[in-house]
Amino acid sequence: MKKTPGTGDVHPAEPKADKASVRRHNLSLVLRTVHEAGETTRAAVAARVGLTRAAVSSLVEHLLDQGFLVESGKTFSGQAGRPGTVLKAADTGPAGLGVEINVDYVSVCVVDLAGTDRLRITEPLDNRAAGATEVLGRAARIAARVLARAAERELHPAGVRLALPGLVSSGTVHQAPNLGWNRVDADRIFAAALTALCPGRPELRVASDNEANVAALAELWFGALGDARSFVHLTGEIGVGGAIVVNGELLRGAHGFAGEIGHMAVDAEGPLCRCGSRGCLEQYAGQSALLRASGLAEEGETGASGVEELARRAEAGEPRAVAAVEEAGRMLGLALSGAVNLLDPEVVVLGGIYPRLMPRLGPAVDAELARRVVSGLWTPTAGRLRPASTSTDAARGAAAVVIREVLADPLAYGR
Amino acid sequence: MKKTPGTGDVHPAEPKADKASVRRHNLSLVLRTVHEAGETTRAAVAARVGLTRAAVSSLVEHLLDQGFLVESGKTFSGQAGRPGTVLKAADTGPAGLGVEINVDYVSVCVVDLAGTDRLRITEPLDNRAAGATEVLGRAARIAARVLARAAERELHPAGVRLALPGLVSSGTVHQAPNLGWNRVDADRIFAAALTALCPGRPELRVASDNEANVAALAELWFGALGDARSFVHLTGEIGVGGAIVVNGELLRGAHGFAGEIGHMAVDAEGPLCRCGSRGCLEQYAGQSALLRASGLAEEGETGASGVEELARRAEAGEPRAVAAVEEAGRMLGLALSGAVNLLDPEVVVLGGIYPRLMPRLGPAVDAELARRVVSGLWTPTAGRLRPASTSTDAARGAAAVVIREVLADPLAYGR
Repeated sequence: MKKTPGTGDVHPAEPKADKASVRRHNLSLVLRTVHEAGETTRAAVAARVGLTRAAVSSLVEHLLDQGFLVESGKTFSGQAGRPGTVLKAADTGPAGLGVEINVDYVSVCVVDLAGTDRLRITEPLDNRAAGATEVLGRAARIAARVLARAAERELHPAGVRLALPGLVSSGTVHQAPNLGWNRVDADRIFAAALTALCPGRPELRVASDNEANVAALAELWFGALGDARSFVHLTGEIGVGGAIVVNGELLRGAHGFAGEIGHMAVDAEGPLCRCGSRGCLEQYAGQSALLRASGLAEEGETGASGVEELARRAEAGEPRAVAAVEEAGRMLGLALSGAVNLLDPEVVVLGGIYPRLMPRLGPAVDAELARRVVSGLWTPTAGRLRPASTSTDAARGAAAVVIREVLADPLAYGR
Repeated sequence: MKKTPGTGDVHPAEPKADKASVRRHNLSLVLRTVHEAGETTRAAVAARVGLTRAAVSSLVEHLLDQGFLVESGKTFSGQAGRPGTVLKAADTGPAGLGVEINVDYVSVCVVDLAGTDRLRITEPLDNRAAGATEVLGRAARIAARVLARAAERELHPAGVRLALPGLVSSGTVHQAPNLGWNRVDADRIFAAALTALCPGRPELRVASDNEANVAALAELWFGALGDARSFVHLTGEIGVGGAIVVNGELLRGAHGFAGEIGHMAVDAEGPLCRCGSRGCLEQYAGQSALLRASGLAEEGETGASGVEELARRAEAGEPRAVAAVEEAGRMLGLALSGAVNLLDPEVVVLGGIYPRLMPRLGPAVDAELARRVVSGLWTPTAGRLRPASTSTDAARGAAAVVIREVLADPLAYGR
């Protein structure tokens, strides 16, 4: 067999990128670089992305012109030598609108291009008692008020992301047991309600996601996780939501339904859950279960004020409150030990009502994890159990997902 | 602000590929394409990878010359028109050696470049009673016998992969509770033992992995999963191993310890496990638990013959055997419902001793999953619970990992 050296030395053909798509790509690259840096200069951006200074200047001019970036007037001498004018993402223009619809409240917020939470209305509402159309209508009315205030500040949402406590797939809420929803076409109903309330406005694209998923993204993007890029995220509300982030990416699962840690069974023969199973974690560690076990439900305490009272009593050492919080902690630790044995994450983050309860809750969770994580690498002193940052929540995460879409292709959202 | 259109239209610099590295890459591309096709022609390879016919011919000549490919003599008229000589991966030359060390047996196999399991010795051994050095020495002696037979068939392993029932990280067995191992430097001990037994041979590179991980890879590469690329894989042995595959990739976790489904707690107050926790799945669904619950352990039945007898009795309807298998199924279903709620995989695969027990085990597992998977998408008729293919196991998976390394860079392993 004769060898013909040299003739095999070619790469498989790559699709040729045309000039317009290269520019589109590079505009996004520069905008994302400024967004991540907070404040930076043209020279620092050029050094970071590997484009020439001239190329970056041209791209920056376009982004300034279209209102995605602003110059602060300050100059800044970074590592790149000569002082340059400071660039940052605009605090006006394209924004994200996040709408969290939970069992006992609706929270709507606007996040600007820099990722800052700029406007917020949260209303306690009993959404369990109403139908899906009524609840989505309530949320649309709050969203319309937020949109009006945003317009006064020259913030113009480029899209809406709904955050819902249930299994969401392609715009449909497949199931939200705590709201009593089944196969609700949430995107379409919300969009219609919002359009009816804002007749003059161009229609906003609406998409839905699971609230625990976007809360985890908020923690990833805005939280205090340090270098950790793989974590399990729990949000305690009426239900207990969960999300899994692996190497900085949400693990969504085959149907988009991953992360349902609230429905891991902690006692095979435990109480019936609204999902139809028995002994689910949320029957022990959800907000209703905590208020019931502590006796606060009997006293008529509900919602955020009930949780606040529970935290106060637990800190004061009131026995029934302490027992309720510690039992919830044990059950959280039991379910989480299964999740940690399965996924081997770097950290576990507790959000929703849990950060407020951490003084009594955290040690109980940590003790159970230390007992049950097979690697022996879970020790209460390792600091692997963390409260979620108070600045992060599902509404902010949902709004930030819209911002990510703008950053990925600014040309699609320009003036 | 003046716009200077056009000057931003450049991509960030890419590292320039030199001729040698391009040829290296393309040799691997062609070899992998033939490996995956089984039998193919130069024209079909060229069409598949997007290189010219001439380039592919040159690369194929080199791979034939180096003994990675062979021509079968047959001609084959595929979709690409003109009949061509059939190419396939060689059944001699570079091979993979897989060594599974489990609690009650050692299994060693050689897989050739086509992925075929060519040689196998499995020996029942009580490895729990011996120390780590003794057990690794036993495995090396079996491996030496396999290597001698492989040499007769002109199969020359390019490396060794050990498959171990424990937490493995960077060549060290961090912990293998059922073997009683703690921080065992398995790669080094095995390599030294093998080198002492085969003084004339060049030293083989040894690496370790978790046995459940490589069993899952065997299922992915050689099993009957169809289009499924995301699955949870359980292997029932003395312990219960687990692995998670997401979009065709093993989920390894932050320390390499992911997949430990055998140590998910199914009863918080259950029996003490060798890992130090209580109520772990393997206390209910591992091989020892099954033989104990069915009364077979009292009769002195152990190992593979004990499992065979259990399967026979369960199929015959013997009440104690049926009850033991069904209880194990319920517990497997309980733990798996947690894993499915967390991960939302396409399918769940049961390997090790479980395929033999499926007639009684499968319905019990499926019933529990149907009851507890929150999406409601788990129905016993959906066929999402599957026995592992009998042709796949940890030793074959381990050997195939070595083959993957050869396929990724054949030049490093040529004559």
